[in-house]
This record gives sequence, C-alpha cells and structure tokens, in this order.
Amino acid sequence: MKLTTVKEIYKNREQYLDKEVTVGGWVRSVRDSKTFGFIVLHDGTFFETLQVVYHDTMENFAEICKLNVGAAIIVKGTLVATPQAKQPFEIQASEVVVEGTSAPDYPLQKKRHSLEYLRTITHLRSRTNTFQAVFRVRSLCAYAIHKFFQEQGFVYVHTPLITGSDCEGAGEMFQVTTLDMNNVPKDDKGAIDYAQDFFGKETNLTVSGQLNCETFAQAFRNVYTFGPTFRAENSNTTRHAAEFWMIEPECAFADLNDNMDLAEAMLKYVIRYVLENAPEEMNFFNSFVDKGLLDRLNHVVNSEFGHVTYTEAVEILEKNNDKFDYKVFWGCDLQTEHERYLTEEIFKKPVFVTDYPKEIKAFYMKMNEDNKTVAAMDCLVPGIGEIIGGSQREDDLEKLEKRMDELGLKKEDYDFYLDLRKYGTTRHAGFGLGFERCVMYLTGMGNIRDVIPFPRTVKNCDL
Amino acid sequence: MKLTTVKEIYKNREQYLDKEVTVGGWVRSVRDSKTFGFIVLHDGTFFETLQVVYHDTMENFAEICKLNVGAAIIVKGTLVATPQAKQPFEIQASEVVVEGTSAPDYPLQKKRHSLEYLRTITHLRSRTNTFQAVFRVRSLCAYAIHKFFQEQGFVYVHTPLITGSDCEGAGEMFQVTTLDMNNVPKDDKGAIDYAQDFFGKETNLTVSGQLNCETFAQAFRNVYTFGPTFRAENSNTTRHAAEFWMIEPECAFADLNDNMDLAEAMLKYVIRYVLENAPEEMNFFNSFVDKGLLDRLNHVVNSEFGHVTYTEAVEILEKNNDKFDYKVFWGCDLQTEHERYLTEEIFKKPVFVTDYPKEIKAFYMKMNEDNKTVAAMDCLVPGIGEIIGGSQREDDLEKLEKRMDELGLKKEDYDFYLDLRKYGTTRHAGFGLGFERCVMYLTGMGNIRDVIPFPRTVKNCDL
Repeated sequence: MKLTTVKEIYKNREQYLDKEVTVGGWVRSVRDSKTFGFIVLHDGTFFETLQVVYHDTMENFAEICKLNVGAAIIVKGTLVATPQAKQPFEIQASEVVVEGTSAPDYPLQKKRHSLEYLRTITHLRSRTNTFQAVFRVRSLCAYAIHKFFQEQGFVYVHTPLITGSDCEGAGEMFQVTTLDMNNVPKDDKGAIDYAQDFFGKETNLTVSGQLNCETFAQAFRNVYTFGPTFRAENSNTTRHAAEFWMIEPECAFADLNDNMDLAEAMLKYVIRYVLENAPEEMNFFNSFVDKGLLDRLNHVVNSEFGHVTYTEAVEILEKNNDKFDYKVFWGCDLQTEHERYLTEEIFKKPVFVTDYPKEIKAFYMKMNEDNKTVAAMDCLVPGIGEIIGGSQREDDLEKLEKRMDELGLKKEDYDFYLDLRKYGTTRHAGFGLGFERCVMYLTGMGNIRDVIPFPRTVKNCDL
Repeated sequence: MKLTTVKEIYKNREQYLDKEVTVGGWVRSVRDSKTFGFIVLHDGTFFETLQVVYHDTMENFAEICKLNVGAAIIVKGTLVATPQAKQPFEIQASEVVVEGTSAPDYPLQKKRHSLEYLRTITHLRSRTNTFQAVFRVRSLCAYAIHKFFQEQGFVYVHTPLITGSDCEGAGEMFQVTTLDMNNVPKDDKGAIDYAQDFFGKETNLTVSGQLNCETFAQAFRNVYTFGPTFRAENSNTTRHAAEFWMIEPECAFADLNDNMDLAEAMLKYVIRYVLENAPEEMNFFNSFVDKGLLDRLNHVVNSEFGHVTYTEAVEILEKNNDKFDYKVFWGCDLQTEHERYLTEEIFKKPVFVTDYPKEIKAFYMKMNEDNKTVAAMDCLVPGIGEIIGGSQREDDLEKLEKRMDELGLKKEDYDFYLDLRKYGTTRHAGFGLGFERCVMYLTGMGNIRDVIPFPRTVKNCDL
C-alpha cells in the first residue's frame, strides 16, 4: 500500500504541510467530544506519534469514537501545522478507515506497565514506547557493526552454530540431537550410539565462533563473525541469557595494540551511529531510563580509552580492598565490582586492562615474555564493566602445543587449529563483543531480558 | 601493524607508484634464478595477487628462495609499474621478512584441487581462488541485504534460535537439551521429564522466524530477520544443508503485490551491489564456474519480473508434460524441473507464481475469495528454480481459526499468533529467502557445501 510514513512526515515536514497524505498505523489513544475527536496514531516507523483530528461529518464517526487502544486504522487527510500545540502538526482527517479493531481486553492500555509485566507478553511489548526504542536501537546497533567492518573491507564469516567440538571448553553447552530420547540407542559397550545421531557424532550449540574465524583470518586477513552463541549456564541474573549474539573480529598481521585500536574505533563508531540515527529514542532513554546516559556516551566518543596492565590494576585495586566484597590480589579474576571501580572511579572513562595471568585466561592466548601473563585485553566501560574481551593469539606452534599439554587438552581435537600455525602462521588477534551487553550499554536498560526480542533464560523459552 | 593492502594498491595505484610500501600476505608461488626471484603474494584483502621481486643482495636470499607455498611474509619495497608485463605493477623489494613458514606437507600446492578434496580441508580451502571469491561474495551479499532493508527503515529483529514451538509444523527438527542422555529422567507416568530440562520443556532449533517476525511487524510495520535456521532432513543433495541462513521480511499494511515488489527490488539491489563491489570475483565465476553468469545476472537486473498464477502456470506446463519426470496437474506441488522450465524456457527471466492451492501451502496464508487458493507467491529464477517463497498472511481471526481447525492445529499453541488478529490486525505479508540459495545463484556454484564456510549436512559436522 502507498502510505506516507510518520518518519517521512517528521523528517521532511515542509514537503507534506498542507498536502493530502495517507497514513496507516495503530491507535495509542482516542478521545472525542460531541462533534469531533482526536486520535494519537503510531505507525511503527518513528518514535513520535501523529495526532489525527476527525469530525462527525464522517459516516463512521461513531465507529471511530469507539475504537480501542491498539486498533489499526488508515487515515486520509491534510497535514496542518499547529504552532500553538505541543505537537508540531496534525492531520485533519477526511477519512478514517478501520483496518482492524482491537478487542476490549487488549493487554496494553494507556498507562505505564512494568517491565516485569511486559516480559509476560513478548508478542505485544514491542508496541510500547520503551520497546520501540530498545528494538530500534538494537537494529541500528547491529547494522552499525556490519557497516563499520564492511567499510574497512572485513569479510563477514558465518561461523557454524552446531558444532562437534567444545571450542574453549567454555562451560556448559546445549546438546543438539535427533536421537529418540525415549529410547536412546546404545552401542555394544553400553555407551550412547552417536553413530546413529544426525551428524554421526555428539554435537552441541556453539559457545564462540573464534577458532573458526581464525581459519578465515589466515585467508582473508580481516574477518568478523556476528551470530548467535549459547550457554547452558544455570544463572538467573540480569546479565545472563542462554542465547545471545556475539561479534568476533579476527585480524591477521595484528597484535594486541592493533586489537585494542580496533575495539575502540568500533565502539565509538557504533555509539556515534546510534546517536545520529536514533536521537528521539536516545533522548527517551536519557529521560526515562538512565539520566546520565547521553553525557556518558558522548564522553566515551570523545575520550581516548585508558590503558592499564592487570598488574598495575591490581595494585590500584588492592589499595581499595575495603570497598569490595571480593578482595583483590594478584592472580585473582576481576569481578564486576572491581571492573566498574576501575572504569568509573579511577579512569572515569573506558579502559583496557591488559596482560592477565595465564591461569585465568584461555589456552590460545599469546604468552608474554615473562611467561606468567598473556597478551589478553578486556575493555571495561562505566555502568557495565567488561564489554569486550580479546587477545593476541599464540601463533607459535611449539608454545601453543606446550600450553595445551600443560592444560591437558587433546591435540587431536585441534588439528585444524594447529595447522594454522604450521602453514603460514602470522601474529594475529581478535576479540568478542557481547551484542546484548552492547545494547544495554547504549540504552541504559538494566536487564538482558529487555534487550532481546524473545529472551531465552533458565526455564524460560516463550514463543 | 601498518600495512598497505593489495586492495588499496589496486584501487589507488597512482598514489602508490614509485613509493615505498609495506605489504603482508601469503606466498602463492616462488621461483628464483641465481641472483633474483619472484614471489606471487596474496594478502586476502583482494582477489588479485601482487608480484614481488627480490634480489641476492638481501641477507636472507637463500631463506626466501626456499619458502614454500602458504608461507606468510612481510615485504617492504617500491611499487613500480610494469607496462610490458601481464600484471600492472610489482614490488621491487628491499626487505622480505618471514612471518611464518609453511611446512613441506602444505595441502594446497600450486595446482588445481577438486572441490571434493577442498571440502575435506574446510580450514584451509578459503585460501584458494574459488573460495576467496565465494566467501567474499557471501559477505558482500549479506551486507547488501542489511543495507537494502536498513535504508528503507526496516527494523532488524533477532528471532530466537531455540524454540518451544514447531512453527509451521515444517518437518524434522533438531532437539536442544541439557538432559543426561545416558539417563533420561522420566516422570511418574514414564514420560520424559522435561521439567528437568534447561527450559523446563521440550525445545528445538527453529525452522523459521516468521511467526516471531509477524509480532514485530505489528509494532514496527516493516521488519526483517536474518539468521540461522535448521532442518534435520535426511537429504544428501547438493541443495540441502542442516544449518543455513534465511532472510525473512514481514510488512504490515502490505498485500501480496507489495510483497512481490519488495522481493524484486531486494534481489535486484543485492545483485547490483555484488556486481559493483566484487567485479574481480564475479569475472572469475563467469570465466571458470558458470560461463553465462554475468549475462544472466545483468539480464535479471534489467528485466521486470514476470507474473503468472499457479493455475495459468499449470496450464502452460501440462502442455509440456512429455518433458517432465513428474507430470503436472492442478493441485500438484511444482518440482524444480517445472519451476526451471517456467523461468528458463517460458519467461526467460525471473517469474512470480501466485495463488497456489491451499492444500500445498501453510495454514497462515491468506485465503483467496475462490476459497481454493491462497495469496502465496514463489519467485523462480533461471538456473535455480524457487529462490523466494512468501505470502500475504491470513489477518482475519475467524478465517484463520477455521483453517487451523481444518488442519487439526491446536489453537492453544498459537495464542500469541491469534492475538495479533485480535488486537489491531492489519493486512500483512512477508517472504523467506534462503541465503545460501541466493549465494549459489550469484556465484554459479553448484553445491551448497561450497557456499557455506563450515557446512553441516547429514553425518558431517567438521570443525
């Protein structure tokens, strides 16, 4: 259907003023006096609404007056400026056609609903202001990430979701199977007969695309993956989801400094893109969700990120151990409270912490010359803590094999990965950005369930 | 590292000629005479290679001469024009530093390898010309799709991968579980106790994001999802994969014609984008993979797609039944041979077939007034057959419930979906584009295993 969008009207108002337009959308409210009435219309293309004035000269005046919140209508009329009113213009309707009514028990009435309640109606909550803003920003944020990497010639690799290997041994995984659970086939030794499973072996949902990405980086130099990843962790927190999206770039001929430069440039690009392309939504978050949001994001765009080694960071934090639930010491993993203290209190801006003890990081990270720390980096941001984790990768075959031996990893499971070090190995580095954490950071939303269209968490898999 | 890319050199050659540049990449070949030698270097950023000339004045001349295919090097030197030679320029190297050698058993020697062989080394095959071209085009194609929708204000929805519902009852699904397969818990009736599973119920991998997308279309008007989908089908063909990506737009206030216009505009946009942004790769496909490719794609960009109803198509095809393995009759599902005949022999361009018998289409498609056919469309393209399938959706609550009853679908499983028809229903439509099929169409590659970075098919889940 040829409809003018509310976005077009707001963005190019001069072009539409005093002209006839046809718009379609959903009723946010209706109020009428005896001879005329007002409809607040939202068409989904823009955060702001459009006021429609209708009159009893219309045949279906009574029908319109009775419309419930949520009804769909198509309005023809003239756009007129309203310099005295709150809204900049309104439509003087010549025709209001009801596309679809809204039953009286519509769960979204014109009042404020709690986020908890809205989580019980995921199929309708995106019609509210908050979720209009969240999911539009989420979409723009995803696009900005693609745009950033594509403009620099990165190749987007679709790493696989179903995997036969537990990449980094990273925690609990979901099993994927077509075996009959009522009657799991066993082999003659009594073990599960995975030869009968779809892939002929045990398979799981991926926890990271990194190792696959590395194979592509050694072919295309600069690559990224952006896809779903999974954790079967039994943690019912505001920050954990069982299914979430992750961005993982990987660059050949790149070291840890290149990696941090890339992460900083990417974050700034994404923030700028969202601020420019969703000003209405970002103002809404700043007013109603997180008062300091715009200041904080603008500050990030305009600061150079800080840099501190893990060892230095521990020295700083140890002096403040009285403030922490978990006391800091060299060798400990940093908790969110420590990360936030560093970025919020000490640096007052995003900061990279580098060179972590090898014991608390993954086997593939490049060993530093001290043989105690690895070339890892975490990027910490105010309000969140860690948002990005990355590293230079061990590119030396011998050192990598030695580290795998120390950790008891089976080398035959990583043949392909070791091949990359045998055939034209390069210094290379990459990182992972949790997409949902990024959206939370950009919107100020406090619960990961509210930035995922249909969240999957422990005991929760609706729709 | 600050390296000039081969792409930059090719695209802005004037800027680099007679200047010193530093490049990094992998050796495609080395040949030497006594006092100098040539390296063909590929750096992954561009389809073409760069010739490097090195001399025995270098300290490590002997080391360079011995480099194997696949070795990684960093070259410093002067870019000079070579008007007499096949290649437009070369680097006269002042320094060649070996970043990583390549072991003698490197599986990719300088000869043509079969696609079948290359499938056995998915971690290395992207270093070959064919897969450089395929996966760069795949990346550009994905980006073009995002760009197309984002430029028109569509909201990108991440529909869930793990799902508790079998959306369209569409065939075999993969089960997702954290239950112990060795000891599946049973309840007191002897049934599997899914209350103990991660989500507290039986869950599977999604086969389509459409129904979720519809909920967002009724909030944002124009939305799309672009993510992985899964089929546990036991079909070992060149066209089926267990894991593949799908694009599914959904538009409110849109009918079947709007839907076809959108599909046609999208396909043309994507083809144009790839032709413009990967001319070297597309020429390669045209020369070595599929001779008529460029003509065909240019023809598609410049034609208006044809339109024919299913009933008309059947009439046309019935006259040619002697040419088909499966004979055509009204009510039958069209096979690839029929589809290709229509688009290749009859229309000689892409064609939309519309208004299929309701019996062979899904329950949610809008019933036409004849009560026999539904407002469905398939887009057929030469060389492939069906590439897109879509429909207007049934937006009338009563008719939808009636159809679900006829088909024996449980309405309580679709509460959320029926709600969309209760609260502000709109005419709306959408389609699905199989991403891999699109990449095959754009590249002329004949096997889906060769357009997926790490393909998952029956009994095959490597890396």
